[in-house]
Order: sequence, then structure tokens, then C-alpha cells
Amino acid sequence: MSNHAGAVSELVEQLGRLPGIGRKSAERLAFHLLRVSEHEALGLADAIRRVRKDVRYCSACFNLSESELCTICADPSRDRTRLCIVEQPRDLMSLEQSSVFRGVYHVLLGRIAPLDGIGPDQLTIDPLVERVRKGKFVEVIMATNPTVEGDGTSLYISNLLSEYPVEITRLARGITAGSVLEYANREMIADALTGRQKL
Amino acid sequence: MSNHAGAVSELVEQLGRLPGIGRKSAERLAFHLLRVSEHEALGLADAIRRVRKDVRYCSACFNLSESELCTICADPSRDRTRLCIVEQPRDLMSLEQSSVFRGVYHVLLGRIAPLDGIGPDQLTIDPLVERVRKGKFVEVIMATNPTVEGDGTSLYISNLLSEYPVEITRLARGITAGSVLEYANREMIADALTGRQKL
Repeated sequence: MSNHAGAVSELVEQLGRLPGIGRKSAERLAFHLLRVSEHEALGLADAIRRVRKDVRYCSACFNLSESELCTICADPSRDRTRLCIVEQPRDLMSLEQSSVFRGVYHVLLGRIAPLDGIGPDQLTIDPLVERVRKGKFVEVIMATNPTVEGDGTSLYISNLLSEYPVEITRLARGITAGSVLEYANREMIADALTGRQKL
Repeated sequence: MSNHAGAVSELVEQLGRLPGIGRKSAERLAFHLLRVSEHEALGLADAIRRVRKDVRYCSACFNLSESELCTICADPSRDRTRLCIVEQPRDLMSLEQSSVFRGVYHVLLGRIAPLDGIGPDQLTIDPLVERVRKGKFVEVIMATNPTVEGDGTSLYISNLLSEYPVEITRLARGITAGSVLEYANREMIADALTGRQKL
């Protein structure tokens, strides 16, 4: 693109590397950043800088954190006998939004995915086993994603943890609140029937 | 979102202000920026900074530029007798991609849109008239968008320029290359018939 300023090309190029942002979207975003106030445009640049400078993994649970321990691990009101295992910090965020779980988390930072060359060693499974060995957990809740790889990861971990005196559970599966049975897929119906509950 | 680092919340917030980026996309982009190399993440931050620091409007045509004159106005090989009028720098970019037009441009930086409170005074129409008055243009091509407002802006400008000895043209309208007549809308068909050309 020799027909516009090099700095604009560079920004379009950089924005186009973001996931889900194609060439046209990148151009649209670049022109947006040129049009908004300097304060707003630089606010985004600074937020990116800050997140890379200040954010690291919690030394206990591998959640994102700005200090040694994340806000959840540092919170004295959390129940330290229940441990919820998730794949990614964003999954933890989803679970927190429901405010149902008051225990602590362990973030695997991925899932076992042989096809992508990701084995157990690349995840935070060793520190997890160490935590369960040393901790006073009574329950470990597997909250990996309901996919083949997520389920496989849960199975792998629950085998590892079976020698410790903790109850291992997983998230309930079934029909989703607000959904329509007519459009539920076979797997969803099967989960809902298998796990049917007393009314 | 008290459940993750403040710097992450801030970045999600900033990304969510971009057009077409909702909450979930903003989270996804933020986690992407946390996961990629430091070099890549800061590359984006720097590109935003640089675009805001270095990019201004060309003093002749109001295209984006990193110097007094944009690369097109500074290019001695461009035909200075043909002037193409566009709404935005991104429209200029689209036209340049076809490499058909070898003249120079004038960027209005908008279109007349009474409903949005945008009148002729907020566009670069005064400097445009001045350019046409002083220049040696033989043709002015109206390349505003084929919308009610774009057409209105073209009409307004062509009236203003009618006192100067230039030919005023507009982009051809009709069916688009690669399209299917069956799905063409009425307006497109009407344009194609009205402007039909000898084979």
C-alpha cells in the first residue's frame, strides 16, 4: 500500500494480525483510531503496554494477576477446600460471572491436544497435583470445556488425582436455560436424559 | 470485573470501544495480546502511537500523509489535470488499488448529511473550490459513495464547480463484475440499463 502513509499501513498490518480481524476490518479500525481523540487512541496503546508489563500468572493458580497472588487466591473469604480446574483464565472469568462458586481455581493454561502437539507437560498439571497433595481440598471440580479434548484432559487429570482423598466432580451437562428442545442436538439431549434430576 | 487483573479489565474495556468489537470479542483480543510475543503485542501499541504522532492531512488534498504533501500529491508522474473527489482517505485507497486513475485526489473528509448535522462547512469544500479555481484541471470526477448522501454531496459540489471550465463526471454505475443478474436489485438494474454501452 504505497498510496497512504507508512504509519497507517503499519497499523493496518498490525491490526490485521489480530484473530478474526480481516483486511477490511483492520482498515476500518485504523481509520477509527485516526479519527477518535488522541486521548482515546493512546488509551488503547497504553492499555496494551500496561497489560504486557504488569500482568503475569498467579503463582498459586496461574490465573492472570498483577501481583504474586491473583485477587481470588488473595481473597480470605474464598473456600480453600474446593478447587475448580479450568483451561484458560477466560473460562475462570465466565465461571466467576455466575457468582455460584466460592472456592479457588487452577488454570491449566490449555488442554491436552495431541493433534496440536500439546501434551500434559505443557500444562500446569504438575503444580496442580502438588497443590492437591499439599492442600486440604475436599472437592475438585473439573470445568474444562465440553469438547473431546477438554473431556480427555479432565479424564487424564482425574486419573492422576484418584490417589488423593478428594471427591472429583464435573460441571453438569444438559439442556441450556432458555433453549428450545426442538433445536437441541442429539448429544445435548443424551446428556440431559442421562443426568436427569428429581423434581 | 474484579475477578481478573485491573490491567486486563482496562484493555478489554479499551478494545470494546472499537467499532464492531463487542464484549466477548474484546476479551478474546485481550487474551490474544497476552499470549502472543511481547514484540508482537508492543508492535501494535507502537503502531497506534506512531499513527497518532506522525500522520496528518496532506495540505493539498487532505489525504492522510506523513509529510506536508501526501505520496500522491508529491508524485511528479501523476496527471495534475484530472481531479477525483472522494469522501474519505479509505475511498481513495480503494480507487488506488485498481490503478486505473493516474490523476490527483481531493478528500472531502465526509459527506453532507443534514440528519447528522454535517453541512458543507465541515467538509473540505472551500479548499476544493479554491484548487479548481487556481488549477489547470480539465476533468473533475465525483467519486462519492453511491448513497443518498453521497449523491447529494456530489450534486452540491458540481453546482459549485459549474462556473469553472472543467468537465464534471461521476463513476459509472451498473451491474458489478462477477455478479449474478438474478440477485441484482432494482436500482442496480436500472443504473445498468440507463447507462448501457455499445458492444
